[in-house]
Amino acid sequence: MSDAERNFLSDNVVPMADEVLAALAQANRDSVHSYGEDPYTERCTAALSTLFETEVVCLPVATGTAANAIALAAMTPPYGAIYCHDRAHIVTDECGAPEFYSGGAKLIGVTARDGKLRPEQLREPIELARESGVHHVLPASLSLTQATEWGTVYTPDEIRALADFAHQHGLRVHVDGARLANAIAHLGCSPAEATWRAGVDALSFGVTKNGGMAAEAVVFFDPRLAQDAALRRKRSGHLWSKGRFLAAQLLACVSDGLWLRLARHANAMATRLATGLAQLPDLHLVQRVEANEIFAHMPDALIHALRSEGFEFYLWPTPPGEAAPVVRLVTSYRTTPAAVDALIAAAQRHLRAGS
Amino acid sequence: MSDAERNFLSDNVVPMADEVLAALAQANRDSVHSYGEDPYTERCTAALSTLFETEVVCLPVATGTAANAIALAAMTPPYGAIYCHDRAHIVTDECGAPEFYSGGAKLIGVTARDGKLRPEQLREPIELARESGVHHVLPASLSLTQATEWGTVYTPDEIRALADFAHQHGLRVHVDGARLANAIAHLGCSPAEATWRAGVDALSFGVTKNGGMAAEAVVFFDPRLAQDAALRRKRSGHLWSKGRFLAAQLLACVSDGLWLRLARHANAMATRLATGLAQLPDLHLVQRVEANEIFAHMPDALIHALRSEGFEFYLWPTPPGEAAPVVRLVTSYRTTPAAVDALIAAAQRHLRAGS
Amino acid sequence: MSDAERNFLSDNVVPMADEVLAALAQANRDSVHSYGEDPYTERCTAALSTLFETEVVCLPVATGTAANAIALAAMTPPYGAIYCHDRAHIVTDECGAPEFYSGGAKLIGVTARDGKLRPEQLREPIELARESGVHHVLPASLSLTQATEWGTVYTPDEIRALADFAHQHGLRVHVDGARLANAIAHLGCSPAEATWRAGVDALSFGVTKNGGMAAEAVVFFDPRLAQDAALRRKRSGHLWSKGRFLAAQLLACVSDGLWLRLARHANAMATRLATGLAQLPDLHLVQRVEANEIFAHMPDALIHALRSEGFEFYLWPTPPGEAAPVVRLVTSYRTTPAAVDALIAAAQRHLRAGS
Amino acid sequence: MSDAERNFLSDNVVPMADEVLAALAQANRDSVHSYGEDPYTERCTAALSTLFETEVVCLPVATGTAANAIALAAMTPPYGAIYCHDRAHIVTDECGAPEFYSGGAKLIGVTARDGKLRPEQLREPIELARESGVHHVLPASLSLTQATEWGTVYTPDEIRALADFAHQHGLRVHVDGARLANAIAHLGCSPAEATWRAGVDALSFGVTKNGGMAAEAVVFFDPRLAQDAALRRKRSGHLWSKGRFLAAQLLACVSDGLWLRLARHANAMATRLATGLAQLPDLHLVQRVEANEIFAHMPDALIHALRSEGFEFYLWPTPPGEAAPVVRLVTSYRTTPAAVDALIAAAQRHLRAGS
Repeated sequence: MSDAERNFLSDNVVPMADEVLAALAQANRDSVHSYGEDPYTERCTAALSTLFETEVVCLPVATGTAANAIALAAMTPPYGAIYCHDRAHIVTDECGAPEFYSGGAKLIGVTARDGKLRPEQLREPIELARESGVHHVLPASLSLTQATEWGTVYTPDEIRALADFAHQHGLRVHVDGARLANAIAHLGCSPAEATWRAGVDALSFGVTKNGGMAAEAVVFFDPRLAQDAALRRKRSGHLWSKGRFLAAQLLACVSDGLWLRLARHANAMATRLATGLAQLPDLHLVQRVEANEIFAHMPDALIHALRSEGFEFYLWPTPPGEAAPVVRLVTSYRTTPAAVDALIAAAQRHLRAGS
Repeated sequence: MSDAERNFLSDNVVPMADEVLAALAQANRDSVHSYGEDPYTERCTAALSTLFETEVVCLPVATGTAANAIALAAMTPPYGAIYCHDRAHIVTDECGAPEFYSGGAKLIGVTARDGKLRPEQLREPIELARESGVHHVLPASLSLTQATEWGTVYTPDEIRALADFAHQHGLRVHVDGARLANAIAHLGCSPAEATWRAGVDALSFGVTKNGGMAAEAVVFFDPRLAQDAALRRKRSGHLWSKGRFLAAQLLACVSDGLWLRLARHANAMATRLATGLAQLPDLHLVQRVEANEIFAHMPDALIHALRSEGFEFYLWPTPPGEAAPVVRLVTSYRTTPAAVDALIAAAQRHLRAGS
Repeated sequence: MSDAERNFLSDNVVPMADEVLAALAQANRDSVHSYGEDPYTERCTAALSTLFETEVVCLPVATGTAANAIALAAMTPPYGAIYCHDRAHIVTDECGAPEFYSGGAKLIGVTARDGKLRPEQLREPIELARESGVHHVLPASLSLTQATEWGTVYTPDEIRALADFAHQHGLRVHVDGARLANAIAHLGCSPAEATWRAGVDALSFGVTKNGGMAAEAVVFFDPRLAQDAALRRKRSGHLWSKGRFLAAQLLACVSDGLWLRLARHANAMATRLATGLAQLPDLHLVQRVEANEIFAHMPDALIHALRSEGFEFYLWPTPPGEAAPVVRLVTSYRTTPAAVDALIAAAQRHLRAGS
Repeated sequence: MSDAERNFLSDNVVPMADEVLAALAQANRDSVHSYGEDPYTERCTAALSTLFETEVVCLPVATGTAANAIALAAMTPPYGAIYCHDRAHIVTDECGAPEFYSGGAKLIGVTARDGKLRPEQLREPIELARESGVHHVLPASLSLTQATEWGTVYTPDEIRALADFAHQHGLRVHVDGARLANAIAHLGCSPAEATWRAGVDALSFGVTKNGGMAAEAVVFFDPRLAQDAALRRKRSGHLWSKGRFLAAQLLACVSDGLWLRLARHANAMATRLATGLAQLPDLHLVQRVEANEIFAHMPDALIHALRSEGFEFYLWPTPPGEAAPVVRLVTSYRTTPAAVDALIAAAQRHLRAGS
């Protein structure tokens, strides 16, 4: 087994899928107009409109951070508040990108043990903001992560309840869908059901973590929000002159259901791994595993033992009030059953030896 | 002759070079650490340090706009002034990216008929700024374009004179090198001579227009400037999780001198085209052609005639006080002698028919 | 004659008018609600609505820079262009405040020899922007200065022509009225005629230079523009907790026509000074004097001679192509006829002695 | 007893002190140079240097929000983190001013039951940031509030411990001293001991809440931090053309110890009120009262009863896990013993009647 197979650090450590590489080669013919005025980009928008069963505005970019920041800036003024999970990627891992793109908006984090915000959690902070008038930033948007920060998945009903609450209070709804494919694969519903039909206004539709090279789409379900987003993309340096190579990746992923096939495999590997680990003594899953991330309490000794055998995974910040440490293991479209079983077997062996 | 061959719109309408595509495929193996902690990125920095004969800090990004904006933000505070050509790409074509990344700095444009700024042109605006004290933005940086806005090329001595003047006045020096390859191919000097040895502090080193897919490197010759630039890159969404695919492009381009071979071809095609056009009546080159762009005064009738034959090129904003219209024709590593000759022949034919 | 009387540097070197100081004392009674929820602020809005013969939204702030920047940010997105005179205060003297408040918008300066922009001058830069699409910042607003950069005054018809052109092209219109009082005093029209009836959408209504201590009002004629401006004011630290003291100044100025009385005096002194200077040999007014600023070409020797007698005034950047040097002399509500006559007499004496 | 006397909403609802008004009148003579080049501003810097027993750089501004934001922007890059109390004024009441001025920095709030942060609370969030590298904003500054968010006062030793910790981790230290006078009056130490001698790098020195009209000073103890702060002040519209009127207020307050006399009175009234309230049944102080703010749990019925008698005060967001509601009562230099006693008597009467 190669080192690469023992790498459970993230779904972004793996290569792009063969189909994506082939699509790049396919798009690499002759001259086409630049800056997104090319047939690949046009087909990409059409394909995403078909996928979502509605006309969407689609702006391809290379990273999830860019997609999130552009979408949030389109719905949040500089003096606005973005409500989100307090461990959301936009809070902890984007070096202030939403603040930068919005011109200084404030992220207001809400704790959710299982990763899922509830409407009633938003009531108090929004009311406080309203009462404070001009002294407080203006409630402007809600950003949800799907699959969530803790590897769980919002149901369409849960999203709808949040979106309804948000809209009633004048907020727009964004979904960070870096792992939307894994969520949809879990839910078994249509992409439309889990997004705009549930009230989502804009989506970061990620494929980088799911077989892409570097491609995400900012997808606007409300065209008014999209109005100036193309200017924000250009201004932030995210409009590629050879835009075809972003579009080609997205096209490859959504064609023939590749994105769901890849995500289903990643999810299946996560389930296999979670099932194996859950049967071990002293190992506790932080949350049920619904996508391709496993968060588990793991004894220190076991962590060291597995790492010494070449398995790679992250220590994760422990939820407040819980026994440390927590590890995160991520599976991908490339994860092999053999690698999963090897990790479980190694853990079993070490726990047995340690007892 | 294909439509693509008749496309002289820009050097970004063409595919990536085969070597670059091959490099992507080559880098697409197994898992590597993400976010630039991979061997490709390490080798890329080493390769650019070798190329420039000095230790550089190298931040790969996907677009020239991003490279320029990150470099300028590293040397320009929000209350700073950036001096540059009044038709510089950063002024006219980046939708305010330098203003965005710097937090609101001001671009102060200086006119230069042949694209080349002179030190003495900077004296008055900088003195005005100094005399105005806190009322005026602070002179902070000088951004030069190499090859220039009008297709000419700064000599190392010209750059050194500008850089010396800038440094004496407390400014740092940036070069927008979207077409640095074409400039170096023209000059025949080493990359070091035309950059840091001439006083350049940071460089946008572009390969997208020269056979790349989407890759530029922010190259810092002064490591103090680079200190926080990695945070600015992350914050703007330009740190790729699969960073190897940016590094691989840059590596392919600078390996075995590919970048210069491609640029030399583009330049040769531009010279061939310019020479042919210059011999036609009623056609005047705006400036001598030193890189891969031709700016020419062209009669309206000829413009229409050429376009009706499928040749594509841009009308360009006419320099103040000159007879309109001006067209821009760009050659690339893919331009064929046959296409160049066809365009010249078509122009000859139309001019003869029209007379 | 005191040193202070010989000070023609600016209309902001003088004390506040007695009426304004009295108004501060008058407002300094008992407790009132803070942050603009006080009766003075309420009356201030009412008084300005009366003055302008329409319901206005009025946000008092302490400086003209703040007023301009808040107004412009309300009508200009971060990726927007603000068209203005290339020597406008917002360009040269606010250290990038419009860029800061708007989040990085671009000021596009247009030259106008007499200070007055013409609609046809805006056509080309706006068309260039439109053709450039997402590559160029979006034409968003037009900022006029009244009285102008060169001491002249736009007629209502001239403003209307500019505003009509701007509105037809999707721009909103701002007036920097730091010296609006002097302009209105010159025009003899109603404040409404010179502002919203001529198409102005928002106004920086200044009183600091006209007898105030530190007070300007952002006046919105279009309430939609005002919607979030109060948040921008708070966010920039310009909402006073003791807001009554801003409102009281504005109230004092517009009550009983004080602002126009003071401005008429300043204008009369400027006319007296201009008339006297114009009769001297070797002295040429740059433009006709319509408000309270005189710009004049003055021989070097005379400049030094006057300064050595204690007269203070600024050297001004010379308009391109004109004989240097240019001086600016500003009169105020405190300027005495004796001081004006003394300056003229001194100039006469020196010119005679020099000949 | 007047309505005004029953107003315990804030120390910013009261008039300016007579001495401050007199100082404005005194400064309102003749012409002086504008933009802070006047003798009042010069004397103000000298007076604050004397007060703090060290050479300070002093930038007068009109509001505490401006002072805080300018100071924080001087020590925090756009990609930086500001650590502070999670209920700090800069978090909850400035509409995102620190984010705006810094260009998008992130405020990271830490809970402290008694208002006082402890060094050990900062360790975890700073370590998380360091481990996250470019993905997390850079720890840059610590902002303390003195007197604190809950009406308590940091001792010099407590500040020193925090500042030492901050400096060891590369952070600069800011103090929001909107009520520094009240804190110093409580501590009985010198201003130097409680600020720079304890490690404070920059201070928002407020007088608006302590008898001023609208004046705070950004005080830099480290001149390197001050280097560009004057440009930030200008750029944000906080440089007054008639700067003398800011300086005059500050001078009046620090002359002859006026600021401490006024603060001692306010504190004494708060102690009197707290002592009276603490003896009532069903009334509990949230924290000991050390400055001029009282936070108390108060039964709903009593709140309504007192308000119906004309007493004004705010309901305050309840600390997590505590019995609601909490009220805030603020005393000022104008609060009379009679008003305090009247409030206590009214409360006694209502509680008795209710029982």
